[in-house]
Amino acid sequence: MGYFALAVGTATRNRDGKIIESWYPQPILNPPDKLISAISTTAKLNGGNETLVVEHSLMSGLGDAFTATGYEASAQFCRAAESSRQTIVLTALETDSAPASVAEGYLKLHLLSHRMIKPHGCSLEGLFGLLHNIAWTNEGPVDLPELADRQMEARLAGRTLDVQCVDKFPKMTNYVVPKGVRIADTSRVRLGAHIGDGTTVMHEGFVNFNAGTEATSMVEGRITAGVMVGDGSDVGGGSSIMGTLSGGGKVVVSLGRNCLLGANSGIGIPLGDRCTVEAGLYVTAGTKVAMLDHKKQLVKTVKARELAGQSELLFWRNAETGRVECLSNKSAIELNNELHSNN
Amino acid sequence: MGYFALAVGTATRNRDGKIIESWYPQPILNPPDKLISAISTTAKLNGGNETLVVEHSLMSGLGDAFTATGYEASAQFCRAAESSRQTIVLTALETDSAPASVAEGYLKLHLLSHRMIKPHGCSLEGLFGLLHNIAWTNEGPVDLPELADRQMEARLAGRTLDVQCVDKFPKMTNYVVPKGVRIADTSRVRLGAHIGDGTTVMHEGFVNFNAGTEATSMVEGRITAGVMVGDGSDVGGGSSIMGTLSGGGKVVVSLGRNCLLGANSGIGIPLGDRCTVEAGLYVTAGTKVAMLDHKKQLVKTVKARELAGQSELLFWRNAETGRVECLSNKSAIELNNELHSNN
Amino acid sequence: MGYFALAVGTATRNRDGKIIESWYPQPILNPPDKLISAISTTAKLNGGNETLVVEHSLMSGLGDAFTATGYEASAQFCRAAESSRQTIVLTALETDSAPASVAEGYLKLHLLSHRMIKPHGCSLEGLFGLLHNIAWTNEGPVDLPELADRQMEARLAGRTLDVQCVDKFPKMTNYVVPKGVRIADTSRVRLGAHIGDGTTVMHEGFVNFNAGTEATSMVEGRITAGVMVGDGSDVGGGSSIMGTLSGGGKVVVSLGRNCLLGANSGIGIPLGDRCTVEAGLYVTAGTKVAMLDHKKQLVKTVKARELAGQSELLFWRNAETGRVECLSNKSAIELNNELHSNN
Repeated sequence: MGYFALAVGTATRNRDGKIIESWYPQPILNPPDKLISAISTTAKLNGGNETLVVEHSLMSGLGDAFTATGYEASAQFCRAAESSRQTIVLTALETDSAPASVAEGYLKLHLLSHRMIKPHGCSLEGLFGLLHNIAWTNEGPVDLPELADRQMEARLAGRTLDVQCVDKFPKMTNYVVPKGVRIADTSRVRLGAHIGDGTTVMHEGFVNFNAGTEATSMVEGRITAGVMVGDGSDVGGGSSIMGTLSGGGKVVVSLGRNCLLGANSGIGIPLGDRCTVEAGLYVTAGTKVAMLDHKKQLVKTVKARELAGQSELLFWRNAETGRVECLSNKSAIELNNELHSNN
Repeated sequence: MGYFALAVGTATRNRDGKIIESWYPQPILNPPDKLISAISTTAKLNGGNETLVVEHSLMSGLGDAFTATGYEASAQFCRAAESSRQTIVLTALETDSAPASVAEGYLKLHLLSHRMIKPHGCSLEGLFGLLHNIAWTNEGPVDLPELADRQMEARLAGRTLDVQCVDKFPKMTNYVVPKGVRIADTSRVRLGAHIGDGTTVMHEGFVNFNAGTEATSMVEGRITAGVMVGDGSDVGGGSSIMGTLSGGGKVVVSLGRNCLLGANSGIGIPLGDRCTVEAGLYVTAGTKVAMLDHKKQLVKTVKARELAGQSELLFWRNAETGRVECLSNKSAIELNNELHSNN
Repeated sequence: MGYFALAVGTATRNRDGKIIESWYPQPILNPPDKLISAISTTAKLNGGNETLVVEHSLMSGLGDAFTATGYEASAQFCRAAESSRQTIVLTALETDSAPASVAEGYLKLHLLSHRMIKPHGCSLEGLFGLLHNIAWTNEGPVDLPELADRQMEARLAGRTLDVQCVDKFPKMTNYVVPKGVRIADTSRVRLGAHIGDGTTVMHEGFVNFNAGTEATSMVEGRITAGVMVGDGSDVGGGSSIMGTLSGGGKVVVSLGRNCLLGANSGIGIPLGDRCTVEAGLYVTAGTKVAMLDHKKQLVKTVKARELAGQSELLFWRNAETGRVECLSNKSAIELNNELHSNN
């Protein structure tokens, strides 16, 4: 059968009974056929992409199916869910086609944040339109049309209904905290972010969905939707990465390995490995850059977009002339320590 | 009679019985005389600006007064409040004079966030001095002198008293979430902000009280107290807007329609419509700006304050010379796409 | 005996019984010998640095010891703790040596945030390695290995386990809110920060541990670990302060009194008193700076690191030439108002 993904979890429904978010503790990428078969004896899968609301009485049988095929963590969830009063869902995606429901979209965001797939690794087409704009509160997700009533009810009962976020995307850490990360202010990392093992996202860091880091990184700046940052790269305090090549292109911006964006700097072009941008300098695609040789003599002037994807670039603004300059060979690396430090 | 505003709601009192915050689910701007009359039969209004603590037994009658005059939402609140144990307040402002109590100040902040008045549309004179510095916690607002005891009580009982904010202003979303907005990190929008229908405030966005957006905007930068941003304008990631014309003036800074502040840019002067500031460039009032013609030839150099309020300006720093330059005619618009993109 | 510090408080233990955080309502710096003696009659101190888990039945006696020596606030805590079911700890530090346990580290972070010692005023050597990476949630601190189970339990029970922070350091305000401060977004101030009386940390402000402000400051930018900001200085919106002299040195960066970092500016060198950095300008140690005389004539060009620690410097980038310039005498002060304003 060759399914794309499968998971059981809980869901929140709004007043109309519609699922507005779902949580999957143990999503499974490329579930083996034997698992699909085992599950189907308890909860009949119809093929295609579907989300079933599962009766609690079936959870024990579902647990047995997971156990029989070696998915013990999922089995444990199923057994614990038997006595729950929450909505339990089983989402099965035969193919990675555009998500067709909230639950399907959430499963894909889980796959990203569980690091089972990388940014751009699955179809999220139309996701934005599917998702509800939700008030994420201390009393759980509340569909916006229901918020005013809930707020009144809480106030009159002497409780604070704390509306922490009004957005289509929840924060990642209420769904999964992957291994080996620190995230100082979790409100700044959306579900669907891919936070690599070894990454610290400091208070000023931000990571959108379908974006993230490969492995070890210090993130104190903003990683826009779609952007991937390579192993060993630091995104300095308050720095900014545009999502696509600034000035129109569809080229997705990324940062290679061992790069450093200085504090309050920014880029509007993708960069390769071992690149550095001086603190405070913003390089957009249209920025005219003076390329220097190792003696710091001008070779030529190019628009930054022509440098897209190159490695070993060191960008700074000459403090005497105001000119944006770039060293493009390995001597750039030696200059890094002199010019930079990650705030 | 011609009242300015009226609302019923709940309030929090400190140990001394003083009202330290109040919440009004349905504030009414310019309530008709018949409503004032109807209410007065239940809760006697003395004229002027006043806040009455209303007995719960009177709430049913108050509800009837609202129903009789067509304010059904307020009526519903009144009926629900009858069985509450919270402090219920009725705040009536005959005039828009400087707020004289916490409850009056809160009603005005509500009027702003409910978009019933615009920034600078009512008197907030002396508000800052009136408001208490409050610990906003998961267990509700706590007057600061009471916090240490509450913290000890919670800790010893095994609870976490989460102090989310220590400030005179609470976050808006715990009071009202107006229609058509997304606010990704609600801790960054104060009660009293005016968030236009269609506005998204991303994680890096910030909106102070008595400030905000007219309608559709993407806010990823900081909108300082007093600043209004026109329809269609984007405030880029990490960008900064000074509250008054930098360098001393009392001129309030604003941004017109369809403007774009690039990521990590900033302005210290008001701008008209269709203006753009390049990513990373900060234009203060004192910045000397080279005005160029459509052939990019220098026309004259002016201080930015002389450009205050003008439309169709495109600001950037020449990457070859370091000079801050500005195109002031319509050709500026055509260049926008080349130079900018909203992070 | 001459102890360094002593405090009683509560602690959280993980599944293995290990203390992962502790809270001390009334830490005592340099406790007098008579207090140490009085305490020892109830809870035997062994000398050296130690943390004792105290039986609840002993808390009354401990309270008497505090009362007898004039520490009534600590006494009250002890008496209230008698009927608690939480873990109660007594941490006594005979010397200010490197912290040897989580509880010792937390006590030192408390001393900083209670303003009993200043940044760099005690040994925090090895602290980072001692502390657990903890999920700080609305249901209290959860050791990371236990989070997935807790999340499942909460979800199945219909509760939201809100993971607000995944970090070694908690936010300060859940431990202490020192007198005279406002902190608009408390998630951005770590325990161990030293927030001076009179300081406001706005939403964009950030203060790391072992860092902070002396007294009155407006903090809307980022104060990195180790950095101290003098009385009367403003850290503008989105501004950045590097922790150590950029470009390698071990010199700790600090800011003197009455300085102003403009919005979106930054420094990589320590500055003395009455210095200003223009909005949007980043001065790293390697930045070549044109020193001007009072007629704005060039005197010489130096690297910024040579200016480290000097007072009355005014830095800006010439908008006509792109050159980074600096006025170094008192006339600099007069120019401040023209060029700057704190966003």
